[in-house]
Amino acid sequence: MKNERLEKQIDFILEIDKEKSILRQTHLTDHGRRENDAEHAWHMAVMAYLLKEYSNEDIDITKVMIMCLIHDVVEIDAGDTYCYDEEAKKSQAAREEAAKQRIFALLPEDQKAELTSLFEEFEANETAEAHFAHTMDNFQPLLLNNSNDGMDWASHGVSAEQVYGRQGLSKMGSDILYEKTDEIIKYHKEAGHLK
Amino acid sequence: MKNERLEKQIDFILEIDKEKSILRQTHLTDHGRRENDAEHAWHMAVMAYLLKEYSNEDIDITKVMIMCLIHDVVEIDAGDTYCYDEEAKKSQAAREEAAKQRIFALLPEDQKAELTSLFEEFEANETAEAHFAHTMDNFQPLLLNNSNDGMDWASHGVSAEQVYGRQGLSKMGSDILYEKTDEIIKYHKEAGHLK
Repeated sequence: MKNERLEKQIDFILEIDKEKSILRQTHLTDHGRRENDAEHAWHMAVMAYLLKEYSNEDIDITKVMIMCLIHDVVEIDAGDTYCYDEEAKKSQAAREEAAKQRIFALLPEDQKAELTSLFEEFEANETAEAHFAHTMDNFQPLLLNNSNDGMDWASHGVSAEQVYGRQGLSKMGSDILYEKTDEIIKYHKEAGHLK
Repeated sequence: MKNERLEKQIDFILEIDKEKSILRQTHLTDHGRRENDAEHAWHMAVMAYLLKEYSNEDIDITKVMIMCLIHDVVEIDAGDTYCYDEEAKKSQAAREEAAKQRIFALLPEDQKAELTSLFEEFEANETAEAHFAHTMDNFQPLLLNNSNDGMDWASHGVSAEQVYGRQGLSKMGSDILYEKTDEIIKYHKEAGHLK
């Protein structure tokens, strides 16, 4: 007799394997290849655990970690949208909404509701956990890019103002990590890696 | 003024980026490329959260998740040891011990102690959390391999007895997931993918 609940969970588990093939603009350290969504999410979750002491607000770290781990699931259908690609960002919300509906529906009802809610909480960015998860989402590629002499910014002609626009969100999650972020941006502006 | 504690944490964060380049024997779904350690750990952590209801024992899910996320860190120096390579397994413990000493020492003292302890708890496999993390470590590649018609076993000439030897550990973490494991092994033995 089939365990239908488990079979649904396995369907979702196999579906998200596709995140390992979705490439981001960020490159691995040592000027490596482009990073994929699964690697990025793994790195963010480890970082959340290690850096939780820097959160501005009290956080439920389990919730932050699972938020980090699943926040890019919608990109399986919607693809990665580069955060400085203004044209692609216009259609991003609609693409990601359809993906959310399809992918989380693979799960049993209760887990579909739970993960959808976690995903939406991350997107809305109004809770302490969402704030800190967003800080990780920004700080992780910043550290990789910093280790690679800002190559990801330089190759896309990104400006310091654009980076401040995105990284400004990090301040909501952590003043201390934002200080480090600011130091890194200033360095790369001076070095000419940022316009 | 440098925040020395944060600089150490960042050193560790950048060091573990190398896990993204350590290839395992398991292939991604749809007969994809070989999986790396970071992807495997990400998948295990999501699975732990989704499948926690099947744990035989009460578990602290945060602890299981962080255990899953960091359990392969030592492979940065020691490399991946294929679980059915008896020759390589002889030197595995010494290689991984040296790696553990070097890599966790990048962290501030308290976090070095905490992560070393979590890693050792996983390795010793005597607590509820370690049992369930081991179930994930076994069940994750089993699901991928099952989705790929057992190709990873077939190409290495692995026998059903070898798989039972390894997957037997999963029973300690979850009787229900072991039932599914048993069903999968029987299917592949019958189909001739396992000797």
